[in-house]
Amino acid sequence: MESLYVIKIGGNIIDDDALLSVFLKKFAQIKSKKILVHGGGKLATRLAEKLGIPQQLIEGRRITDAETLKIVTMVYAGYINKNIVSELQSLQCNAIGISGADGNSILAHKRENTGIDYGFAGDIDRVNANWFIQLLENGLSPVIASITHDGKNQLLNTNADTIAQEIAKALSPNYLVSLVYSFEKSGVLLEVEDENTVIKNLPAVYYWELKESKKIFAGMIPKLDNAFTAIRQGVNEVIIGKGEELDLLISGKSGTTISHE
Amino acid sequence: MESLYVIKIGGNIIDDDALLSVFLKKFAQIKSKKILVHGGGKLATRLAEKLGIPQQLIEGRRITDAETLKIVTMVYAGYINKNIVSELQSLQCNAIGISGADGNSILAHKRENTGIDYGFAGDIDRVNANWFIQLLENGLSPVIASITHDGKNQLLNTNADTIAQEIAKALSPNYLVSLVYSFEKSGVLLEVEDENTVIKNLPAVYYWELKESKKIFAGMIPKLDNAFTAIRQGVNEVIIGKGEELDLLISGKSGTTISHE
Repeated sequence: MESLYVIKIGGNIIDDDALLSVFLKKFAQIKSKKILVHGGGKLATRLAEKLGIPQQLIEGRRITDAETLKIVTMVYAGYINKNIVSELQSLQCNAIGISGADGNSILAHKRENTGIDYGFAGDIDRVNANWFIQLLENGLSPVIASITHDGKNQLLNTNADTIAQEIAKALSPNYLVSLVYSFEKSGVLLEVEDENTVIKNLPAVYYWELKESKKIFAGMIPKLDNAFTAIRQGVNEVIIGKGEELDLLISGKSGTTISHE
Repeated sequence: MESLYVIKIGGNIIDDDALLSVFLKKFAQIKSKKILVHGGGKLATRLAEKLGIPQQLIEGRRITDAETLKIVTMVYAGYINKNIVSELQSLQCNAIGISGADGNSILAHKRENTGIDYGFAGDIDRVNANWFIQLLENGLSPVIASITHDGKNQLLNTNADTIAQEIAKALSPNYLVSLVYSFEKSGVLLEVEDENTVIKNLPAVYYWELKESKKIFAGMIPKLDNAFTAIRQGVNEVIIGKGEELDLLISGKSGTTISHE
């Protein structure tokens, strides 16, 4: 099967033009098929502040009221998405920037209120795999802003990690998928403050062991649980590390790799 | 040849949610292939005001400095584009919202400074017809925000009328193209204040006559000159009228039609 990279970048890269450029150059150089998923960084928060719209975060997730949905739609699907596409185009990478509404690519529903009202936050129901395959087979690299829709004219702010995971899963029957989570650390660390303690390979048994003995930084647990879920769902490997080292992540010289045992 | 409608909507429809919904319902009902082109309405101006970014218009064209480019990218390609796509999807119209950077669909260059510095304003060099054909043949309806790029990582604010005209022209070898300009009037009026004086058909000779005798409202002249240029370039017909009467415009029961004689 042909390789496909599904790469999610975090706010630390989006907020730093120089880092973003380094990352995009390396992304453009990947010869295999590739998909980029991004949310926003501090830009949305800053725009909300300037406009006097109070922002509320619960457990790291933004509460998306109607005004905040407008802002994230503008910033994620507008400003960030089009600037990334424009830069990739200048690097001869034929990118197409879309949200989950475009081509009905990602259908979601509004998250139910179970004590916490997340507002217009989406939980994914379906990824339109055929549409992504069509784009990829036509030589395009989709760049996905983390906005989905419910098919009933409601846009929904949706976690970018989850979007990347669902796309990776949906395309695994057709491609050998590597799911790359780019964040501010060099990988999964044994000592959270020490960048030299990257775990190069993390088999499931080892992960459960580390998790049991509380040796994994708590903030990493949801990400890693998702990674193992992705593997069980058919994704070939999950790589976690620094986006600006994308070439090294892909060649296995940097980051943490989780794969089938 | 198969029919294709290229429809440009103006700010009066974008600024009015109820009008926009009427228009989108009629757009979704068109059985032929179709493309929608939009700019922004007062939203961009209002956002600029709130953020304290002064806006300058010269001869009805916005001067696009760097800060204004950010705003139009957010508002046109983000907020307006994704809301239109979401509404069309809910009407079973498989829309895809793009800018000229996406899929390298519209290449432009920064307008030269000939006395007036328009800033990051784009003049179109090339429409990627094959890419539009591919989308259309796959059952998608492109929704185009009036932002293009220069291929060298510069987004450019570009006149939506011109984008619609250039797309119509580029696709005329492949489709029987109707170019629809939707604006706030019922069509080209003989008496500018009287909506009952719509000129139903406007042959070139009649237009030159009216223009000579200064019977055409000056503001209409650039639009009409463009319409006749489009016809000379292979577009089958140009229809001018109210977007909310789209069904009547298409059936010839409303608006002004300009076609080959």
